[in-house]
Amino acid sequence: MLNRVGKQTLIFRNKPRVIGSFSIVGPKEGKGNFGKYFHKILQDDLFGEKSYESAESKMLIMAITEAINDAQVNRDEIDALFAGDLMNQIISSSFAARTLEVPYFGLFGACSTMAESLIMGACHVDGGFARYAACATGSHFSSAEKQFRYPLELGTQRPPTSQWTVTGMGCTILGNSQKGISVDYATIGKVVDWNVTDANNMGAAMAPAAMSTLKAHFDDTGKTPDDYDLILTGDLGKLGSEILIDLMEYQGYKLGSNYNDCGQMIYNNTQKTFMGGSGCGCGASILNSYVYSRMKKGELKNVLFVATGALMSTLSSQQGNSIPSIAHAVALSVGGENV
Amino acid sequence: MLNRVGKQTLIFRNKPRVIGSFSIVGPKEGKGNFGKYFHKILQDDLFGEKSYESAESKMLIMAITEAINDAQVNRDEIDALFAGDLMNQIISSSFAARTLEVPYFGLFGACSTMAESLIMGACHVDGGFARYAACATGSHFSSAEKQFRYPLELGTQRPPTSQWTVTGMGCTILGNSQKGISVDYATIGKVVDWNVTDANNMGAAMAPAAMSTLKAHFDDTGKTPDDYDLILTGDLGKLGSEILIDLMEYQGYKLGSNYNDCGQMIYNNTQKTFMGGSGCGCGASILNSYVYSRMKKGELKNVLFVATGALMSTLSSQQGNSIPSIAHAVALSVGGENV
Repeated sequence: MLNRVGKQTLIFRNKPRVIGSFSIVGPKEGKGNFGKYFHKILQDDLFGEKSYESAESKMLIMAITEAINDAQVNRDEIDALFAGDLMNQIISSSFAARTLEVPYFGLFGACSTMAESLIMGACHVDGGFARYAACATGSHFSSAEKQFRYPLELGTQRPPTSQWTVTGMGCTILGNSQKGISVDYATIGKVVDWNVTDANNMGAAMAPAAMSTLKAHFDDTGKTPDDYDLILTGDLGKLGSEILIDLMEYQGYKLGSNYNDCGQMIYNNTQKTFMGGSGCGCGASILNSYVYSRMKKGELKNVLFVATGALMSTLSSQQGNSIPSIAHAVALSVGGENV
Repeated sequence: MLNRVGKQTLIFRNKPRVIGSFSIVGPKEGKGNFGKYFHKILQDDLFGEKSYESAESKMLIMAITEAINDAQVNRDEIDALFAGDLMNQIISSSFAARTLEVPYFGLFGACSTMAESLIMGACHVDGGFARYAACATGSHFSSAEKQFRYPLELGTQRPPTSQWTVTGMGCTILGNSQKGISVDYATIGKVVDWNVTDANNMGAAMAPAAMSTLKAHFDDTGKTPDDYDLILTGDLGKLGSEILIDLMEYQGYKLGSNYNDCGQMIYNNTQKTFMGGSGCGCGASILNSYVYSRMKKGELKNVLFVATGALMSTLSSQQGNSIPSIAHAVALSVGGENV
């Protein structure tokens, strides 16, 4: 049986469920708008380690371990871990997988990785290839900033279109269960590039990819934006999400008050983050805390989570290339829509 | 129904089949032992581009496009492309996906990526999430060398345990078909690290991961090495494959004349590559040419392809970390073993 509708959308007929989750963030994120939702807030973003990269990996290990605990399963029942991050060769994820000793698939989708890992996990659970799958990602401001932009010690001035890489991790455990939040649909993104070359304006680079995937999702499923209580993009930031609203309007879809963006939401206005948050950890930490929490309370019933990723490297930018972007969408519901 | 046996092994009951494949390599690889098997040999490894990174991406586009042609399907019937490479942020794959405009999942498994992409593709086809899946990876000597080691212009002397990154790409198209080479089992690797820190001795770092996955495969399936006409590791090279033979003997398994390694096989002895080939493209180019060709001719019936990856980055090595490694195994057969 083909478990697809339309060109890019998967249907999960066996309803993989969110059976556990965990989020962990840095001090700045703890002081932002979602402090009361995150499961763990670090006082020091080095987390007792000697490097930011080690801290990032340690945070990911904690997110995965605590999500497994939350799911009340044993670590050796996790049949596959799907994880990725922003570091070159995704070292944070691979070093975490070394400690965790579970079957591991490394992913790279930049800031779209939370959705990518959820899709992979949902396919494996739905298709009977895994009883339990761990889907995880995250980012760390300090390791990302020094890799992608400037040494932290320089204190380089940030342009007004820039976003602040979130120090945060999130992990979702998917499994078969009779109740809880289910993964109903996923729309796989295509790479979209509208020739934005400014690596300090990721929101503008990624907005067309979000538009492409949202349009595909609505075309494939016959749904409209009104079918969701919340449509949440990963980390377009303030500018990028405004661009997305405009782009969707050109396509004939109105994103109303049920639309928001994790990058726009995560920090408060006093935190000097310009366009807001970014990084794999932005969507991952909010999905695995605030979103699931509100869904469990019955405040949100149908959520479309659309994580967006900018797929450039420092080298591709130095060589003059524009920024290819991608967005993957995951439709979640409580109570379980009949698909 | 659970499509797993044992701890780490998946069973593909619907038999996803290899319906198309393509390999493309650089001039040095063309002069090696498999010149007559590769589909396309470049005369110039810049492939008409201005950078090695662009050449790498262009080679990957050709591998995927020609594999799709070989499968006699249309590009818009490819429901998912699973691809990754060695470049930071896998730019070669993401830029290729931009050109190809197909739903795309970025992977990072270092040199294990050919097996990782095949497993992902097989899960999607077997589970009805894709009609046709493209599984692709590759590497380029010049882009990898300048990223991971030294500027090419320095002509830095290579240590005797080093391997030569293969300039080569491979793509497999999986789909539902009544005949041809089928993907029967896959064993997902765990990250293994025996504390090797020498980035010029990858074979030694990866051999324990290959051992771990091979042992899991035999334990999970009840098979023995004798059940395969060919057990082929990805790119352990001469030293690494000797270490693997020893490690397997300690585990009670004898790898005999049916065992070989793509890294050991790809170059001839006059080509000064010390321990042989490495890189995602090593296993990918040989699997998608020589191995499938011999299987189609009936010379090989059951093949276990075990691609191995070293999951370090330059930064993790500079920070004094050892090299975590992984191996994924894919069991292929002709005629179709009943699983």
